[in-house]
Amino acid sequence: MGNVGRVPVGIIGASGYGGVQLVRLLADHPAAEVVYLGGDSSAGKPYSSLYPHLTNCVDLTVEAIDLDKIAAKCEVVFLSLPNGLAYQMAPTLIEKGCKVLDLSADYRFENLDTYKAWYGGDRSDSALAATAVYGLPELYRDRIKNAQLVGCAGCYVTASLLALAPLLKQGIIVPETAIIDAKSGSSGGGRKAEINLLLAEADNSIGAYGVGRHRHTPEIEQVCSDLAGHDIKVQFTPHLMPMVRGILATVYANLRDPGLVREDLITIFSAFYRNSPLVKVLPAGVYPQSKWACGTNLCYIGVEVDPRTDRVIVMSAIDNLIKGQAGQGIQCMNLMMGWEETLGLPQLAFYP
Amino acid sequence: MGNVGRVPVGIIGASGYGGVQLVRLLADHPAAEVVYLGGDSSAGKPYSSLYPHLTNCVDLTVEAIDLDKIAAKCEVVFLSLPNGLAYQMAPTLIEKGCKVLDLSADYRFENLDTYKAWYGGDRSDSALAATAVYGLPELYRDRIKNAQLVGCAGCYVTASLLALAPLLKQGIIVPETAIIDAKSGSSGGGRKAEINLLLAEADNSIGAYGVGRHRHTPEIEQVCSDLAGHDIKVQFTPHLMPMVRGILATVYANLRDPGLVREDLITIFSAFYRNSPLVKVLPAGVYPQSKWACGTNLCYIGVEVDPRTDRVIVMSAIDNLIKGQAGQGIQCMNLMMGWEETLGLPQLAFYP
Amino acid sequence: MGNVGRVPVGIIGASGYGGVQLVRLLADHPAAEVVYLGGDSSAGKPYSSLYPHLTNCVDLTVEAIDLDKIAAKCEVVFLSLPNGLAYQMAPTLIEKGCKVLDLSADYRFENLDTYKAWYGGDRSDSALAATAVYGLPELYRDRIKNAQLVGCAGCYVTASLLALAPLLKQGIIVPETAIIDAKSGSSGGGRKAEINLLLAEADNSIGAYGVGRHRHTPEIEQVCSDLAGHDIKVQFTPHLMPMVRGILATVYANLRDPGLVREDLITIFSAFYRNSPLVKVLPAGVYPQSKWACGTNLCYIGVEVDPRTDRVIVMSAIDNLIKGQAGQGIQCMNLMMGWEETLGLPQLAFYP
Amino acid sequence: MGNVGRVPVGIIGASGYGGVQLVRLLADHPAAEVVYLGGDSSAGKPYSSLYPHLTNCVDLTVEAIDLDKIAAKCEVVFLSLPNGLAYQMAPTLIEKGCKVLDLSADYRFENLDTYKAWYGGDRSDSALAATAVYGLPELYRDRIKNAQLVGCAGCYVTASLLALAPLLKQGIIVPETAIIDAKSGSSGGGRKAEINLLLAEADNSIGAYGVGRHRHTPEIEQVCSDLAGHDIKVQFTPHLMPMVRGILATVYANLRDPGLVREDLITIFSAFYRNSPLVKVLPAGVYPQSKWACGTNLCYIGVEVDPRTDRVIVMSAIDNLIKGQAGQGIQCMNLMMGWEETLGLPQLAFYP
Repeated sequence: MGNVGRVPVGIIGASGYGGVQLVRLLADHPAAEVVYLGGDSSAGKPYSSLYPHLTNCVDLTVEAIDLDKIAAKCEVVFLSLPNGLAYQMAPTLIEKGCKVLDLSADYRFENLDTYKAWYGGDRSDSALAATAVYGLPELYRDRIKNAQLVGCAGCYVTASLLALAPLLKQGIIVPETAIIDAKSGSSGGGRKAEINLLLAEADNSIGAYGVGRHRHTPEIEQVCSDLAGHDIKVQFTPHLMPMVRGILATVYANLRDPGLVREDLITIFSAFYRNSPLVKVLPAGVYPQSKWACGTNLCYIGVEVDPRTDRVIVMSAIDNLIKGQAGQGIQCMNLMMGWEETLGLPQLAFYP
Repeated sequence: MGNVGRVPVGIIGASGYGGVQLVRLLADHPAAEVVYLGGDSSAGKPYSSLYPHLTNCVDLTVEAIDLDKIAAKCEVVFLSLPNGLAYQMAPTLIEKGCKVLDLSADYRFENLDTYKAWYGGDRSDSALAATAVYGLPELYRDRIKNAQLVGCAGCYVTASLLALAPLLKQGIIVPETAIIDAKSGSSGGGRKAEINLLLAEADNSIGAYGVGRHRHTPEIEQVCSDLAGHDIKVQFTPHLMPMVRGILATVYANLRDPGLVREDLITIFSAFYRNSPLVKVLPAGVYPQSKWACGTNLCYIGVEVDPRTDRVIVMSAIDNLIKGQAGQGIQCMNLMMGWEETLGLPQLAFYP
Repeated sequence: MGNVGRVPVGIIGASGYGGVQLVRLLADHPAAEVVYLGGDSSAGKPYSSLYPHLTNCVDLTVEAIDLDKIAAKCEVVFLSLPNGLAYQMAPTLIEKGCKVLDLSADYRFENLDTYKAWYGGDRSDSALAATAVYGLPELYRDRIKNAQLVGCAGCYVTASLLALAPLLKQGIIVPETAIIDAKSGSSGGGRKAEINLLLAEADNSIGAYGVGRHRHTPEIEQVCSDLAGHDIKVQFTPHLMPMVRGILATVYANLRDPGLVREDLITIFSAFYRNSPLVKVLPAGVYPQSKWACGTNLCYIGVEVDPRTDRVIVMSAIDNLIKGQAGQGIQCMNLMMGWEETLGLPQLAFYP
Repeated sequence: MGNVGRVPVGIIGASGYGGVQLVRLLADHPAAEVVYLGGDSSAGKPYSSLYPHLTNCVDLTVEAIDLDKIAAKCEVVFLSLPNGLAYQMAPTLIEKGCKVLDLSADYRFENLDTYKAWYGGDRSDSALAATAVYGLPELYRDRIKNAQLVGCAGCYVTASLLALAPLLKQGIIVPETAIIDAKSGSSGGGRKAEINLLLAEADNSIGAYGVGRHRHTPEIEQVCSDLAGHDIKVQFTPHLMPMVRGILATVYANLRDPGLVREDLITIFSAFYRNSPLVKVLPAGVYPQSKWACGTNLCYIGVEVDPRTDRVIVMSAIDNLIKGQAGQGIQCMNLMMGWEETLGLPQLAFYP
């Protein structure tokens, strides 16, 4: 790190899984360089004391969060914090000229009332929030290019929307029939000491949670409504899987036109993602395994039509910590900086 | 084994996971006793050479399949074979007076044309097949009590139907909106050396398979149509999970009456399963973890209503090898023999 | 529960994994019955709120710890608490006539100085501690039969000692060459919210911990010294495995007599455990898989000799929460009560 | 692929896990490029039909093995085949001027009698075999630089030797006391459909295999003897772990000089690996987790001394498919080609 010419990047909230993915990915980025890691609870500690595999590999110390110092040092700042903190920091950073990428939910909503209804909090940054762009490059690429503040899409949301977008945009499905049955590895719960995330509890088992109440629901609906052109509600059910990382979303919807076959839909999906190098639409009859995407910033999509029921079933797989979090942030940063969208982003899994 | 007074039981196809579950469960059964284990490929071998953990615990040898000898020795015979073999053996065993429980698909269908369409084969046993009872005690208890031949319900089917039955029977849902997103541990694939079932392939990953084409679909539809009183089609998608055993079915359907709340439905489910001691309907807000059912013959059911979408979401969890296979067979046997339904069936998991 | 004639049993510290195993195992015990569950932090809560799979299965409420009440109600009391608490409760319970089985380390040491050196604490119960019997039935069966207070052997210790005991007792090995490389599922860490026990951290990974410093070391050495007839030190290294339960100990030692072959040793082991129905010595060339023991109170032992190095390698497998904890306690209780040693203890795994 | 100036590389035996790692790693290699994938059983198939995650990512077809064609096309050839096949191909390839890296055991032994004793086979290539260099760069860097044929070190061997080498080279331990307790993920068994490698069998379980008889034993001993300066035997026990990839070797040995403390040994290890950028010696008290190395070509080493027993315990962690197989091959290729040793080799895991 520290090469001449690389853009200096800061990460606030470096101790969690989002932070460590950013550190990992940016270590290989040819145009950006991490120069600051911030976190109040671990301020003063070598970063490798939090992640010992980085001993003798990453040589940074976590610093206390001082927005003025960060802004002086960094051209780009990633906020990788629990919901409700980014909106207390972003205004200052933006004012001082940083480009800001928030990985939390704080800047994902067009309507702050929706945010408050699902996340609570008292916000006075509505003017700034109105300038934030939703960070899902495959759908909002051009707007991201011109943004100074991006609220990066959530992990479940990314998998869900990449499966639904072509269907909604082309008017292929009856929107209100959309059901998303999503499955995530437990790293989605963060590096938090909670009983239900213990290996002893979560291994060898699967279960749903937050049924009808998960906070990614309004975020999915906001974009789906945008794509469909009118307000729609979707059914979204997250499940915890006995594995570390990866998301698979299985999406069901009724076809408007029952005559469509899967090859038609694969053609439509391929066309829709023609300019999205990180989405891989699979051939007919091939369905994604979640781990194909692990360690990459890819989204794999498999499409099936059931002629018995006139439904389309779309399966999308991502790495929840990369395309669902840190990698997406970097993809957005690449666009904001005018770089190639895929710069520094891994595209091949280490299978198996 | 070998106690005076216990009913002698034979298992044809003892080498697979269904067989070894039967051996395990029947070792604790107070009224039945395994006296015969049959299998052509391992005939002559001590059973413990197939499952070394049974060394010095189970002292039986696998015998070649000789239906006359089996019928002479056994009052009850379990067939735990790949699809397409049971119907070549059941007629002889029935003729000689055995009670027969088939764990394959051979005797699950009222209409043999459906069987042939999904499984192939050329069958000449239609008269016998017409006498077979579908082996799902919670739905067909009385008929099983009087049956001589039972085609035990499939694993995915059991989880799906126990979630759907009260809804269909009471006319609560719009049947054609039913979607079953099912997740199974890899033991459901059997003890077969296949690349996709290797730990190196299947661990850390999730994926759908047989989308729109899985053979459990017509079986689910047969019973759903019976419950609803008219022909219906359901959407069924199985997924392979990175775990050994357990199934979770997440079932979605539109409510006919949007005014219902989850407490109403829990009341309806509880009433429906009032006389079914092996179904545990969970309190409001509690959703089943698949491993709660592992090692037991229970089915746990959680019910949720999403008032935003007017849908009901039912989650059901079973052990695919017990309530989904061998335990279900024993439950059916108990009924056929006039014993208490739960005899010899474990009802408490070794959690975690 | 509550049948006439079953001995009333209490569990203090019911909320952890040791507690829930006791509840599970005793539910099937023909001669004992849980009548009391105690725990300060969850006092007043239905037990099934801690373990929702017990809803409608186990109908007990956790009570505050009141030793007088417990003693009045229970003939046998299990203490399943963190180290350092049992010795504050056992004296009262013993005085009031209860039989007490402690699952912690508090009553495992003949010499309280050893306890204090490894566990700390200030103890005034040395007279009582001197009467405690070490709870490993295969080695101390007769003393346990007459004990009122038993300090049950630790999980790693059980696997290690059952592998080493015949070798030391018969003078077959050079004691100071004994090396125990032990591997445990993560439930051994208890139901504690710790980062290193998260699925996201511990899955897909293996690592050693407490090398040369694990508290089970002095406990192993105490019994080994007793068996060998002189003080010996052993090398003990625990490893955390990416699985929920089970321990495998791989034990290495130099043979005193290089002429011995594995069949000799298997004969010696079989003879040593002739009267121990829960130890299964495997035939030549068969090595135990840890999950063969899971869900049972068995210990599987495989023995190998390497004639190239004149070493014996013994592999022993147990379920850390059953034979390594709660099941062992019940086995000890059976002996203390004059019951058959194996009463109520499962002996067949649900494989796979 | 296909850039001007990159050295053309062929892989014979591309369908296995070694092959797919090579494809993955070389896709990111700045100086080499895969131009040929060979395999008889899958000849004619698109490579992505074997590994569907490579669809639209890797665009090569598997070709039949034609040594003349391969030699004409490729400057470097990797042989990633079952033992016993490489020695039938290497002579031709070498004769035609290719540099050859064999990932099997065929060219690992200085003495072909040892090979034949452990692997069988009838070999007529002893002259060529005598020119082969053992492919473990940290120990034989200079010889590899000048080699035309390299027999890359085995996976278990790499982890074992990197832990033992400084101890043996510096005469710190009593060599014959060395015990290696090694644990590997199941991908080490290859992409072979075998019952014992099924997830249903291998998950949730650990067990030893090949005790005293594993074929990596003579390979470890060959190098240990070379380092120690006299013939020595080691105890090596492999265990199968319920995880996909990664090896942890826990190595025990008696210190010659009991006065040494762990800091002394860490200093010695650090000095020994001063010029080996891919070995990371950890600070005192830090022990490696196997997954720290996964997805990288690193070896992490933790060192502990037990003053109670005067033993050193060394723990080494690698990715069995990278540093233990394909990555090691590339590291050797880099040296043979005069490139930087670490070229194209990942050094940071995607944790968690």
